[in-house]
Amino acid sequence: MTYREDVEGLDASILMHPRVWEASGHVENFTDPMIDCKQCKARFRLDTLAELLSNKNKEKGLIELQKTAEGEVVIQSLDSTLSLNDKVTAVLENPNAASKFLEMLNCPQCGNKGTFTQPRKFNLMFKTFLGPVDDSANIIYLRPETAQGIFVNFLNVLNSSRQKLPFGIAQIGKAFRNEINTKNFLFRTREFEQMEMQYFCKQGTDKQHYDEWKERRINWFKSLGMTATKLRFHDHPKDKLAHYAKEATDIEYEFPFGWGEIEGIHNRTDFDLSRHQEYSGKSQLYFDDDTKEKFIPYIIETSAGASRSFMAFLVDAYYEEEVRGEQRSVLRFHPKLAPIKAAILPLVNKDGMPEIAKKIESDLRPFLRIFYDDKGAVGRRYRRMDEAGTPFCITVDTQTLQDETVTLRERDSMEQVRVSISGLLNYLLEKLR
Amino acid sequence: MTYREDVEGLDASILMHPRVWEASGHVENFTDPMIDCKQCKARFRLDTLAELLSNKNKEKGLIELQKTAEGEVVIQSLDSTLSLNDKVTAVLENPNAASKFLEMLNCPQCGNKGTFTQPRKFNLMFKTFLGPVDDSANIIYLRPETAQGIFVNFLNVLNSSRQKLPFGIAQIGKAFRNEINTKNFLFRTREFEQMEMQYFCKQGTDKQHYDEWKERRINWFKSLGMTATKLRFHDHPKDKLAHYAKEATDIEYEFPFGWGEIEGIHNRTDFDLSRHQEYSGKSQLYFDDDTKEKFIPYIIETSAGASRSFMAFLVDAYYEEEVRGEQRSVLRFHPKLAPIKAAILPLVNKDGMPEIAKKIESDLRPFLRIFYDDKGAVGRRYRRMDEAGTPFCITVDTQTLQDETVTLRERDSMEQVRVSISGLLNYLLEKLR
Repeated sequence: MTYREDVEGLDASILMHPRVWEASGHVENFTDPMIDCKQCKARFRLDTLAELLSNKNKEKGLIELQKTAEGEVVIQSLDSTLSLNDKVTAVLENPNAASKFLEMLNCPQCGNKGTFTQPRKFNLMFKTFLGPVDDSANIIYLRPETAQGIFVNFLNVLNSSRQKLPFGIAQIGKAFRNEINTKNFLFRTREFEQMEMQYFCKQGTDKQHYDEWKERRINWFKSLGMTATKLRFHDHPKDKLAHYAKEATDIEYEFPFGWGEIEGIHNRTDFDLSRHQEYSGKSQLYFDDDTKEKFIPYIIETSAGASRSFMAFLVDAYYEEEVRGEQRSVLRFHPKLAPIKAAILPLVNKDGMPEIAKKIESDLRPFLRIFYDDKGAVGRRYRRMDEAGTPFCITVDTQTLQDETVTLRERDSMEQVRVSISGLLNYLLEKLR
Repeated sequence: MTYREDVEGLDASILMHPRVWEASGHVENFTDPMIDCKQCKARFRLDTLAELLSNKNKEKGLIELQKTAEGEVVIQSLDSTLSLNDKVTAVLENPNAASKFLEMLNCPQCGNKGTFTQPRKFNLMFKTFLGPVDDSANIIYLRPETAQGIFVNFLNVLNSSRQKLPFGIAQIGKAFRNEINTKNFLFRTREFEQMEMQYFCKQGTDKQHYDEWKERRINWFKSLGMTATKLRFHDHPKDKLAHYAKEATDIEYEFPFGWGEIEGIHNRTDFDLSRHQEYSGKSQLYFDDDTKEKFIPYIIETSAGASRSFMAFLVDAYYEEEVRGEQRSVLRFHPKLAPIKAAILPLVNKDGMPEIAKKIESDLRPFLRIFYDDKGAVGRRYRRMDEAGTPFCITVDTQTLQDETVTLRERDSMEQVRVSISGLLNYLLEKLR
């Protein structure tokens, strides 16, 4: 359901022309520093390794690895004969410094010292070959982000939708990154789901749209029940911005393993469309009907990780509590996120109760995702639904046979009210809105 | 919205362990016969080439290429000194016959004769490399179908959903095939969208479920307005069945370029789960609570091409007709398929009409996809919406100012009725159901 008339949907392809990724800078820049242990063949991202060593077996008295607020690893020499007050990125650009640094490290897997290769740049794009010949002329990449699919379709959408600036293009879809090390469950995986919106606007209005989208997006997470105190912005300092960004912030969620980015909001300026204009030779100019000006639009990006957000909503909703001496696990999902909206539980499998329950199920099912369960004690059935995050349980009992009402039990408060069968659908739709 | 309680949704990954594709038979069998012209380097699927030659420049008097009802190419020799009454598949298995056949062909691109290489088997799976080393140990495939993702998740779904046989698992998602030649717009592309349901049942009930799903699926296309006379089953004869199938049919649609498959329905028997049990070493047995039997379920597959079906719905809905001396192009989409459900067109941009129109828009937008258009003559605005397939146009006119009604114009009949603004949403929801 579209609530904003100024945002269009798109489903761009996963395999795109390699020239797109040259224009975007991914072929050149989308790399991680990678090292191998020559002894045990274990492979690490240099910055991840540094982090690992910093946490558990750093060379005390020789070096200290510190993570800055911006997430960069700083290598500090505690031995005055070495001058290693550099950052990992700096080390990478200086082969001599890299050698010295790596010689001091023990491999976290085999424990040997000084067995690392020189760091190499490893491109994180998955490549494949279009057609049957596996040579470089036929290389094509799996998209590492959905954003470029939106940029290269900007004119298609503009010309078919009759939108005018400012407007957005949104898409949800898979992206692929050949991560050297995956980690933290869904937080860093090689295949993941993004949900993005790119908002096209005129230079000069970009700051205002950037600020507005920042607020809208953090409020979106809050409006779906995510704990406000576990959400924060992490604004990127000016000297740490990506090559395409004028201003950038991450929305971070406090996972059990620490703060992690769940969405990035960037003022990408006219960088993207200018680059695609340059590399494709096709004008990306927008004609403003009111002012008769032609210009390349600025872009405000809101790029959320759907997989990461899913995990954040999941851990945020999870509670363990004691109820009348018993342990209860409950997923307190916002009703909009709950995979099952209501469960129907006939109390006894006789006296016509299953028939009434089945009738209620078939009446509700076209409108709501329903779960029918007639197995076991009702208390156990409630617990199952608590664990699945189902907001409402409907019990058909003996009173139902008398007055055509059911018991409606709410997940979080565990309160029970009686609702007439005829008014049930509207009652639920109202509560679930 | 789930209408069937016995079908669960799934979103399996695109990159799966290569062993999955060994178990499925894709590594060994998912190949096309490919030949190259040594002269001009053009590349063809042998069967496509045969078809091409049969249509436009076959070697008259020497051979004749015929396509059977089952879509196979038969090579018939008209020269009695050659015995080539073979099928292309047979030719492929016989290098001598292939040589003789290929020597007689002219390359459709450069026109040279006898310049073709021997046919080779080309695997249609896109391969990529997991991790930074491009060697065969790290090969991983992009899924060429969504089906295997369902099979390998059978136990996960069974154990988390509390379903009992018979039940289905459905998913919509991208699949990838490295086609040598793409063709017919969306009909054969390298990246495409599938929508599949795999229905797990007990041996002995498989025939009944197969027949039921055949009917349900062709009725699904009809229920969304596809012309019944352009739909047919093409049952596969027993001797042409795929290696996994006991019974199979295609639902075909008559495209402007001929009949083409838009969905396949297969009785896959216990082939898939048996193979995955064998290759993974993990039992895929189902325990039947009622009979206390253990067995591997049979599978009925309904595998639709979402991209192909989209194209079929599109061409089926397209009409050109004359209306009062003017040409009208109209997409007669079923309302459920129409991308825009209703357009709101204020007749004049004054007298408060835009304000009323905007109010109607914001009231309807949470429930329906709405298009707002106040540009140009109303006749032209109607035509635009006809071309987009919008079932209803709502006009705000001078009478609206007097009695709070609007004109509602229906796309196909072009009939106009007056509806009160307060009853508009319910009126539309009723019509769009």
